[in-house]
Amino acid sequence: MVSKEEMNQFFRAEFPQTKCTVEALGEMSARVRHKVGFEELRPGGTVSGPVLMTTADVALYAAILGKIGLVALTVTTSLTINFLRKPAADRDIIGECQLLKVGRSLAIGEVALYSEGDSAPVAHAVGTYSIPPARS
Amino acid sequence: MVSKEEMNQFFRAEFPQTKCTVEALGEMSARVRHKVGFEELRPGGTVSGPVLMTTADVALYAAILGKIGLVALTVTTSLTINFLRKPAADRDIIGECQLLKVGRSLAIGEVALYSEGDSAPVAHAVGTYSIPPARS
Amino acid sequence: MVSKEEMNQFFRAEFPQTKCTVEALGEMSARVRHKVGFEELRPGGTVSGPVLMTTADVALYAAILGKIGLVALTVTTSLTINFLRKPAADRDIIGECQLLKVGRSLAIGEVALYSEGDSAPVAHAVGTYSIPPARS
Amino acid sequence: MVSKEEMNQFFRAEFPQTKCTVEALGEMSARVRHKVGFEELRPGGTVSGPVLMTTADVALYAAILGKIGLVALTVTTSLTINFLRKPAADRDIIGECQLLKVGRSLAIGEVALYSEGDSAPVAHAVGTYSIPPARS
Repeated sequence: MVSKEEMNQFFRAEFPQTKCTVEALGEMSARVRHKVGFEELRPGGTVSGPVLMTTADVALYAAILGKIGLVALTVTTSLTINFLRKPAADRDIIGECQLLKVGRSLAIGEVALYSEGDSAPVAHAVGTYSIPPARS
Repeated sequence: MVSKEEMNQFFRAEFPQTKCTVEALGEMSARVRHKVGFEELRPGGTVSGPVLMTTADVALYAAILGKIGLVALTVTTSLTINFLRKPAADRDIIGECQLLKVGRSLAIGEVALYSEGDSAPVAHAVGTYSIPPARS
Repeated sequence: MVSKEEMNQFFRAEFPQTKCTVEALGEMSARVRHKVGFEELRPGGTVSGPVLMTTADVALYAAILGKIGLVALTVTTSLTINFLRKPAADRDIIGECQLLKVGRSLAIGEVALYSEGDSAPVAHAVGTYSIPPARS
Repeated sequence: MVSKEEMNQFFRAEFPQTKCTVEALGEMSARVRHKVGFEELRPGGTVSGPVLMTTADVALYAAILGKIGLVALTVTTSLTINFLRKPAADRDIIGECQLLKVGRSLAIGEVALYSEGDSAPVAHAVGTYSIPPARS
């Protein structure tokens, strides 16, 4: 199984622009953190929607790669996000992903998104990923 | 009706970090452009998913504000995106939004996303927005 | 709080065609059962997609009404369903709904769908409902 | 290319319970009709959500099979539907599907749903289908 450290090294190499770090990896799950600073805010003192979508995408990606190995060609095929509450402007976003299925060619999971330290989710996402056929 | 220039001025004031510009506004539609540079790319020479999601979000937002006026408190409540083809790494992303309904409290529309100059969509999105009750 | 018996009575009165029964109601949750017979099957010996969608819809509806009371005008505004595995042809479908948020005008929840007796979900759904303003 | 008559014959053979008929087939499109009677209604004199979902599913299925041939093992992998307006209780539901992409293993399309004779859509859906590898 891929360790958290290997996963973060992979992310830094493959996605140098990312502001997400993987905080935990489970058998079919992952928790990631997206740093929140000026760039992530929108008027009204809240975190922008695309930051939440990015965190959901990375959490799903991390959970899937944690399960199948570091297969760079895995790509998102769909994402559905519902925004539930206004995120806090001064807290990082935490994404908790639980995979629902990892098949041969498709993986699917859900992500609950939180402002750090708050138990009520700010958004909820479901995403599907295509897994390339060549994985060993 | 809001002009394209007023809309871009509004976006620059409200979302200073945005890389999107509004290129056309219709009665129930909008076309926006997202600049693509190093920041927007991911490994394999393609545009990242969050850039496509952002463009869809802005196209929907522009089309709705073009219809109801510059109501800053309008917020995204959901977004579903399906990724169809690999975007070109060296072209801007164009989002073409068509609204399906603008009700009193909820608006909904769809967006086709393209690499500029290519007629086959790279992604397709559907989004819903909550409209605040106080609009005049 | 609404009891399971009151809820089923409400469903039989309001939706005489339904094949769903409510099996459990919690603070923000519900479990429903959809009978599976010839009408529910499709070629290849599996349960049809619309049956799964219907079960998801009813599970969400039951969970929301369990929370806000028997408000008949509550209506579905969106549903996203992902099909994960082939359901068994000879077992009822069970839908387990967990609400994510019940606001003043909108409620949202997720549903895991199972063939009875199997722990791997056959589908997963997320739905949103509009709640009429007049509820007391 | 598959004719409308062959498609309806296929549907009657494979889905004897269906109340949908295919009314038109295009290169990447299809139009279907779902009969509306007592069974399709819900309280308040409107067409039930599952009827709209079924019509969307059949319209997508017909458009895809019209493109790739009558491959019975094609299955829905996801469906997202947004309900826009209350359908009329005394009119059939018409689903107009436009495919967005038909790849080797996945097809995706969108469907606008109408009460017959009304130009404002009652719902909008996006669906994805898995295509079995063995098609010739």
